[in-house]
Amino acid sequence: MAPYILYYWPSIQGRGEFVRLALEEAGVPYNDVARNKKGMPELEASLDAAQEPLPAFAPPVLRAGELLIGQAANILLFLGAHHGLAPRNEKGRLWCNQLQLTIADIVAEAHDTHHPISVNDYYEDQKKEAKARAKDFRATRIPKFLGYFEKVLENNPGRGGFAVGARLTYVDLSLFQLVEGLRYAFPKTMAQLEPQWPRLVALCETVRARPNIAAYLKSKRRIPFNEDGIFRRYPELDK
Amino acid sequence: MAPYILYYWPSIQGRGEFVRLALEEAGVPYNDVARNKKGMPELEASLDAAQEPLPAFAPPVLRAGELLIGQAANILLFLGAHHGLAPRNEKGRLWCNQLQLTIADIVAEAHDTHHPISVNDYYEDQKKEAKARAKDFRATRIPKFLGYFEKVLENNPGRGGFAVGARLTYVDLSLFQLVEGLRYAFPKTMAQLEPQWPRLVALCETVRARPNIAAYLKSKRRIPFNEDGIFRRYPELDK
Repeated sequence: MAPYILYYWPSIQGRGEFVRLALEEAGVPYNDVARNKKGMPELEASLDAAQEPLPAFAPPVLRAGELLIGQAANILLFLGAHHGLAPRNEKGRLWCNQLQLTIADIVAEAHDTHHPISVNDYYEDQKKEAKARAKDFRATRIPKFLGYFEKVLENNPGRGGFAVGARLTYVDLSLFQLVEGLRYAFPKTMAQLEPQWPRLVALCETVRARPNIAAYLKSKRRIPFNEDGIFRRYPELDK
Repeated sequence: MAPYILYYWPSIQGRGEFVRLALEEAGVPYNDVARNKKGMPELEASLDAAQEPLPAFAPPVLRAGELLIGQAANILLFLGAHHGLAPRNEKGRLWCNQLQLTIADIVAEAHDTHHPISVNDYYEDQKKEAKARAKDFRATRIPKFLGYFEKVLENNPGRGGFAVGARLTYVDLSLFQLVEGLRYAFPKTMAQLEPQWPRLVALCETVRARPNIAAYLKSKRRIPFNEDGIFRRYPELDK
């Protein structure tokens, strides 16, 4: 099998990281193409309707043989089905997708804490509005979403502390990434709130200890969190 | 077959409308349960982890026999597969899902034009920020998204002017709803910009003329757009 090609920004985790984690856990070869010299034009081509019959609106994009797949949750739907990272039955597949889309919702809201007005303007030019949005995000949105995921873990009768059934799925990887991102961006808030969600905290450690994930996190392939990504550490947004 | 049960807010189109349009086009019976007297507790139960093993985070939620499915795009993935509203092959299914998720992205941004700071506060209390966000949305985001969908239509070699292949899919219904919503919320902006997207405009007329959709739009089941939904007409946000 030819390796997959991942098209994503080379200097951030961003939404591409949810895909990278799934590829790493599955142990499938992939070319993170924009991190190569001269790889950026290939990323741009994946979005270009003149070059691709089914162009994506935005990265991440995954090329898998003849398929060109956009939208992180859609890529994970594909990878889940092909690499044992989701249940085989319809009920389990839909439930994974539902949870992933709910994760995507809070990820978009996390992004908007630093860009509440426009993605085209600098953070510094929307700082006042960012403070207001971040305040609401910390006080009401993080607790609502993470409280929901904690209940999902509590409701799952499967052993192992996973989100869906008794085996790891891509949803577990994404919950790990979500919690890690929130910890990076809102360390004070998370330190205060986390004890409410013991199952979620335990799941993060389970994911971190997976051999392929542990190796990935130590490698240069894991880009550190930084202030160009979705989860940004701006102390003024964390009280 | 027992009719589907749809759990969604009874007084708005919102994200539930994407599901309603698919159910109406497919001609399958469904109970829009919260629109019945005493239906709201049933909606709330679909979100309650104490009552449902797989609770949804938010409406819309669809009960289909033993399945309880949340997230609009996930419900459409299910309905597309079961009611001929998506291609049967993997490539076509993923492409539909990818387009639907991109529609979901602009729908979320449309919502945030009137609630850029907090969903918990009134519009009136974030009006200044709403004006700034709406200005950016009109100037850069509507053109970027609708220009993308126009190219998708242009790239599709199938006859009929549909988004995917040569048959109607749920993506066409959702594009109709998106354009109608933007026309309602931003009539001046859309009147000015629409001529750029002739294929998208033509697709809306194709969808509107489908017998089941035409009947639905004339019925009381179609809730009018209003200022409690996602697409709100606030003249100050349309220049």
